[in-house]
Amino acid sequence: MDVSNVLHMNGGFGDNSYASNSVIQRKVMAMTKAIIEEAVTGVYGNMFLKTICIADLGCSSGPNTLFVATEVMKTVDKIRRKFGHKSSPEFQIFLNDLPGNDFNSIFRSLPRVQEELRDEMGSEFGPCFFTGLPGSFYSRLCPIGSLHFVHSSYSLMWLSQVPKGVEMNKENIYLASTSPSSVIQAYYEQFQKDFSMFLKCRSEELVSGGRMVLTILGRKGDDPTSKECCYIWDLLAMALKQMVYEGLIEQEKLYSFSIPQYTPSPFEVKAEVEKEGSFAINHLEASEINWAACGNKFNLPHSSNDDGYNVAKCMRSVAEPLLMDHFGESIMDKLFLKYGEILSDCMSKEETKFVNVTISMTKKE
Amino acid sequence: MDVSNVLHMNGGFGDNSYASNSVIQRKVMAMTKAIIEEAVTGVYGNMFLKTICIADLGCSSGPNTLFVATEVMKTVDKIRRKFGHKSSPEFQIFLNDLPGNDFNSIFRSLPRVQEELRDEMGSEFGPCFFTGLPGSFYSRLCPIGSLHFVHSSYSLMWLSQVPKGVEMNKENIYLASTSPSSVIQAYYEQFQKDFSMFLKCRSEELVSGGRMVLTILGRKGDDPTSKECCYIWDLLAMALKQMVYEGLIEQEKLYSFSIPQYTPSPFEVKAEVEKEGSFAINHLEASEINWAACGNKFNLPHSSNDDGYNVAKCMRSVAEPLLMDHFGESIMDKLFLKYGEILSDCMSKEETKFVNVTISMTKKE
Repeated sequence: MDVSNVLHMNGGFGDNSYASNSVIQRKVMAMTKAIIEEAVTGVYGNMFLKTICIADLGCSSGPNTLFVATEVMKTVDKIRRKFGHKSSPEFQIFLNDLPGNDFNSIFRSLPRVQEELRDEMGSEFGPCFFTGLPGSFYSRLCPIGSLHFVHSSYSLMWLSQVPKGVEMNKENIYLASTSPSSVIQAYYEQFQKDFSMFLKCRSEELVSGGRMVLTILGRKGDDPTSKECCYIWDLLAMALKQMVYEGLIEQEKLYSFSIPQYTPSPFEVKAEVEKEGSFAINHLEASEINWAACGNKFNLPHSSNDDGYNVAKCMRSVAEPLLMDHFGESIMDKLFLKYGEILSDCMSKEETKFVNVTISMTKKE
Repeated sequence: MDVSNVLHMNGGFGDNSYASNSVIQRKVMAMTKAIIEEAVTGVYGNMFLKTICIADLGCSSGPNTLFVATEVMKTVDKIRRKFGHKSSPEFQIFLNDLPGNDFNSIFRSLPRVQEELRDEMGSEFGPCFFTGLPGSFYSRLCPIGSLHFVHSSYSLMWLSQVPKGVEMNKENIYLASTSPSSVIQAYYEQFQKDFSMFLKCRSEELVSGGRMVLTILGRKGDDPTSKECCYIWDLLAMALKQMVYEGLIEQEKLYSFSIPQYTPSPFEVKAEVEKEGSFAINHLEASEINWAACGNKFNLPHSSNDDGYNVAKCMRSVAEPLLMDHFGESIMDKLFLKYGEILSDCMSKEETKFVNVTISMTKKE
């Protein structure tokens, strides 16, 4: 299954989806703020560039799309002031996602965002030029040596395709404790292939000394079938199985569905970076974020006090395009209602967390 | 009236509009092919760049959006082969239009276009990276010294706004033989202000030796109220006046409507370029294209043998957003039916032509 047309497309599911994603994305940004600052200081503080070219890969479209880019620019400006430099560098921001992403809505929000930035940062700041960069980040996106800083958050766990040879995974939709070893191997190999291609492409696009900060949904331990990374999908599989039992989904349909995702460990990420060889690792960490963080802590509309419902809403914005493509639109409401109930039940009994793997790298000379 | 949200937006009016525009645009491209080739040779043949950055300003969205960019890349490849260079430069293409343009449909067509390019040009060609660049070309769009070749076709006759002080123009919607001299002056000054700002911005963005080719709807002679540039709008004003007479439009509404366009002469274009001072003019010409060229010569759908109808359709795609914004949607069908009748009548009696002013420039050292 080629998922290139449905992945990263958080643009098509209404405001609710954006809101749910927003919360997690902002928390991740807050958690990685110091790492990003260090990396940006490394780029700007060492080179004092007249133009800084920044790419945000898998930017999606919603209230957070420009959040990372504006935070990075503000960090550069802070360093500029610290060093007493009078004139600001010019910023060129490349916003990347698949061609199906809703770039129109991003572009239509730009005049307002740029005005707000000017008001907040003063006349010395910028200028900043935003561009849309449609395409898969598992291929080249920019010319050789044209970028100084690359960022990607919550996108690189998505594989370019469902791995080949996972038919034996039966009613599992992702890796699980009952997955055959051949399926585990197929998932891991697809991750290795995709992530090494990602690194190769970025190493060509970044200048020497350029920086890259990636946050990937992952795991802490060695076992790729452990609960810390598989449980969230396990529970979705449970909802799907109930619907098979109720005759709403054919068993065959469930058996042929797989989530094209791989949640790597820090060790696996490090291994690929070292194998590719173009980058020096500055920082590598795994951090945790409660599933309940999907809940509404920013007074966004459509909030709920039911954590299970909020997590289901959050996961819906991420997984619905894939599910709809395979199972059809008609069962979606029922599926996510069921999923929400299962999530509520679990979350009331145990502490459930996502694991983020964050890596900061420098392109070698 | 700030027209920045409605201009260049040929994206919202269905396939008919695109088709009509396509024909004129392709003819203009065919007419300026030699000039573009000379300019591209000047850029690539003198510098032998590893990466060529090309901007198409006012690209719109439709079947012709990528036509210029692909033609320029093919020209570079022709020169590369001529010089016996083995490796192709990388291409970075910036597609610019206002933020309201339909970039989504451009981006969704890219995978197909890129595949076709690879098939046609062979494995030695490219790679080419397409980006969307939303914003007004009367402001900076890219960092300093980041472009090698800038192209714009049929966009620069649009002013950034309706000139101030044109209320005295009464039932004229553009310059006309009955326009007071203060109105003529206001239009000309707005053109001077906008075009000099355009030149200033591009002179900052282009590298030394970089090239720019612009084709602007214009006129040959000195008189900005002459028939060669005003007749097409005069006839639209005639249709509007008939509707005032029929009580379908209030006279006040017509009196307060003006087209934010200026159709300069080669002399006026040259004067601004020399005043701004950053560019050396390589070539400047005025050429003609029959109104009837709007007709369907490329076997596009929805063709008609009625030239008047085709021109009305063509003008509708260009002017409807402005007209709808001012007069409302309900009278559009009737207006363009009437306009088509008036055009048919004129075109059967006299030869009617658009004038294109094409200028090719080099950014000075």
